[in-house]
Amino acid sequence: MLKKSEDAIPYLEKQFQDYLPGNSIDCVIFGYKNQALHMLLLQWKLVNVWALPGGFIRTDEDLDKAAQRILLDRTSLDAICLKQFHTFGNKKRTKTENKDQPKNEERLIKKLYGENEFITNWFAQRFISTSYFALVNIEKTNPRPDMLSEKCEWKSLKEIPALIFDHNEIVQKALEQLRIQLNYLPVGMSLLPDKFTMQDLQKLYEAILQKPLERSNFQRKILKLDFLNRHEKQMSGGAHKAPYLYSFDELNYNDLIKHGIGFF
Amino acid sequence: MLKKSEDAIPYLEKQFQDYLPGNSIDCVIFGYKNQALHMLLLQWKLVNVWALPGGFIRTDEDLDKAAQRILLDRTSLDAICLKQFHTFGNKKRTKTENKDQPKNEERLIKKLYGENEFITNWFAQRFISTSYFALVNIEKTNPRPDMLSEKCEWKSLKEIPALIFDHNEIVQKALEQLRIQLNYLPVGMSLLPDKFTMQDLQKLYEAILQKPLERSNFQRKILKLDFLNRHEKQMSGGAHKAPYLYSFDELNYNDLIKHGIGFF
Repeated sequence: MLKKSEDAIPYLEKQFQDYLPGNSIDCVIFGYKNQALHMLLLQWKLVNVWALPGGFIRTDEDLDKAAQRILLDRTSLDAICLKQFHTFGNKKRTKTENKDQPKNEERLIKKLYGENEFITNWFAQRFISTSYFALVNIEKTNPRPDMLSEKCEWKSLKEIPALIFDHNEIVQKALEQLRIQLNYLPVGMSLLPDKFTMQDLQKLYEAILQKPLERSNFQRKILKLDFLNRHEKQMSGGAHKAPYLYSFDELNYNDLIKHGIGFF
Repeated sequence: MLKKSEDAIPYLEKQFQDYLPGNSIDCVIFGYKNQALHMLLLQWKLVNVWALPGGFIRTDEDLDKAAQRILLDRTSLDAICLKQFHTFGNKKRTKTENKDQPKNEERLIKKLYGENEFITNWFAQRFISTSYFALVNIEKTNPRPDMLSEKCEWKSLKEIPALIFDHNEIVQKALEQLRIQLNYLPVGMSLLPDKFTMQDLQKLYEAILQKPLERSNFQRKILKLDFLNRHEKQMSGGAHKAPYLYSFDELNYNDLIKHGIGFF
């Protein structure tokens, strides 16, 4: 393990020779905490731009396994269930110019890696990026920046800064896919506590959809999917006023994850 | 345009220098005809294996545009609305061995291109393939094989042979995505005639889902989505026994395509 950032250049030069040319991976890690959606971002050292955790694929590594390894290398997040959602391949995707970020990636790479020809040429390639996303409980993670990054932080949707390259577009597409997924897969297990109210679940759906939902309509639709167990109210003190508590029916929930909600 | 297959080698050698290394595209074109789902396949010249229409990405070409151009080059299908659905990147994906296809792709390439070193090295690369799919009305297409292919044919799902590389796996994933899509997008416009019966639409859904659906349940769900117009029966002859005819309500249909069916 490298301790100092100046060790990065020989380390990277050696690494890059084992990578597939022209291909990269980016990860959009959504987190849920305090009824709000967040996202895990890295701030690069030296140039201070923010970016999604990403990296390259080893020649002897399956694409899906590379995504897991890259996320671990760059953020220390392990055993996250990543799902591929889109591959970004516009010819100018890494040439995006934005007043809040360096004028182009060449200047950035030069600042990071100096005049190392191999590394400069590596980054000058056109990369097609296969992107993965996941939705995790922030309190169960312990993200740490890697040696290339200054910070590794959760940012709420409203705090997301201008990101490098086409990463803001990648984030938007991931959000879109997460919302579409609500139409055919249940969500919530491992994000909510063991017992929760219908309102807790509704808040989660609202955080993902970024819109308020009508309470009774939401409850009716959720109950029809039959993936919750309702618990009897404890008859003590003011508990009769308390809302029902629910937990996930693991068998039915996992069955829906496997087969889909199935409109037809 | 090249007329003979022996012209292919210098043509390909020149082409390959303009392609991005390590990246390819495969297209799964589903067709609908006679109430059955089909798929467009190419049979390669000389080695006679069947494969999906696929190809490589030019250095100056966006990924999505490359998919359109490749489909046109290889099958003559134009203006097909392709949708990206998955990127295949297992390290051994082009090394699949199968008794019904050449033992490995090296022998195949050698047979096709002889000892040309540039082309041999090109194909010896590991390729990550971004895959696209579409669902079209077979009768509105006129597929033709390209100079590398012996045949370009529609095969029904039951007729699909052992395909090269991981192409059978790509087909299965495309089918899975097409089925998932029924949960949040309408289907049928441009596949069914202008006026059709509820049974016609049900047959289309059954062909995609590969399972029978219950008639009244299907009708109730479809009508609730409000993307059909029902036409009054013509009161002549035995017409009172005829089923209602429907057409797509273009405005509502396109609205659903844009915003999704929206479970919540």
